[in-house]
Amino acid sequence: MTARRINRVDYSLYLVTDRNLARCGSFEDIVAEALSGGVTMVQLREKSLGAGAFLREARSLKELTDRFCVPLIINDRLDIALACGASGVHLGQDDMPCAIARRIAGRKLIIGVSVSTIEEALEATAQEADYLGISPVFSTPTKTDTPVPVGIQGLMHLRRATHIPLVAIGGINAANAADIVRAGADGIAVVSSIMASSAPRLAAVELRSAIEEAKSISR
Amino acid sequence: MTARRINRVDYSLYLVTDRNLARCGSFEDIVAEALSGGVTMVQLREKSLGAGAFLREARSLKELTDRFCVPLIINDRLDIALACGASGVHLGQDDMPCAIARRIAGRKLIIGVSVSTIEEALEATAQEADYLGISPVFSTPTKTDTPVPVGIQGLMHLRRATHIPLVAIGGINAANAADIVRAGADGIAVVSSIMASSAPRLAAVELRSAIEEAKSISR
Repeated sequence: MTARRINRVDYSLYLVTDRNLARCGSFEDIVAEALSGGVTMVQLREKSLGAGAFLREARSLKELTDRFCVPLIINDRLDIALACGASGVHLGQDDMPCAIARRIAGRKLIIGVSVSTIEEALEATAQEADYLGISPVFSTPTKTDTPVPVGIQGLMHLRRATHIPLVAIGGINAANAADIVRAGADGIAVVSSIMASSAPRLAAVELRSAIEEAKSISR
Repeated sequence: MTARRINRVDYSLYLVTDRNLARCGSFEDIVAEALSGGVTMVQLREKSLGAGAFLREARSLKELTDRFCVPLIINDRLDIALACGASGVHLGQDDMPCAIARRIAGRKLIIGVSVSTIEEALEATAQEADYLGISPVFSTPTKTDTPVPVGIQGLMHLRRATHIPLVAIGGINAANAADIVRAGADGIAVVSSIMASSAPRLAAVELRSAIEEAKSISR
């Protein structure tokens, strides 16, 4: 299995997985449905699996994302990202510093960093992050230990502070996705809007439509 | 800070850390005492820290082990091992397969694998492990979810099954260390015998003496 080349990174609709939210079918079925509905990027986030099981899951998910020519990003574990041939790794503020991950991975991997302040955004940009996850934009039930929400105004400030792609996450749904795009985000990331949906394909379609509509108006 | 070259790997007395056992002074003070008492190898084992804190701890410990010209091995996380310039990584049966870690790290890192059966030992040897951790040799209070103890007989069988260095772990103390060495182990690994000791330097001295005496008789 060779890594399929992802020519252009499309951050529009970025799914972050959470197997605990999967109520409607298997975890992988939901991701497959979401991909068929228009998800452009998938991040595998596993906080409780050992490395062996995490790697097996990552390989399995990579076969799926490869079929859709969509990049797979691994949360936190650079070694798992390298081991499964993922397109990238996503680092939180409590994970390995971006500059060190860049030194190890070189340009082989897309590196994303979660930020919630201008200072963190500038630091991650200086450390050669490829994109920033702005987290949280709104308050969210998925994560409870997160900083104060950035909000639309905060997102606009962040947009002016850095030139690299911004993916907004936290409390985003089809109703507010357009506001996020108009504020300057390159994409939106969702967890529960898709993972906990009883119709993940439809959820993805609706989110993607809202994003594309907002992008077409912004252009 | 460049990685200091470790010319010869001496597995004789291999300390596996557990910060929760440190009762007598700080975690690093105990490791320093143990190193001054004759520990020849240190494995940093962290099961609850995030990657950022794990990496900071690894870097700090590496400065210490470098001062003693002793290799630092990182438990489980190959990425942390690469990031801190450790000498190696130690993999459990539930961690990343050795062959994949070898593909990523090449010959830059010592790779150790925990095994408890002949089958696992042969598999890890085939996957180019540099040494095997035989675990547990005796029953131990440190880990509760471990396989049936290998015992002295089992250790002797394992010694005949593979040519690579064997480090025995589990319930080893100064009283039984010599038996382990006579059964063919290249070294013994300890957690609580040193980490929970009120006199870690003395504990290391006694263990090391028992090992050296047994080795000198075996030669």
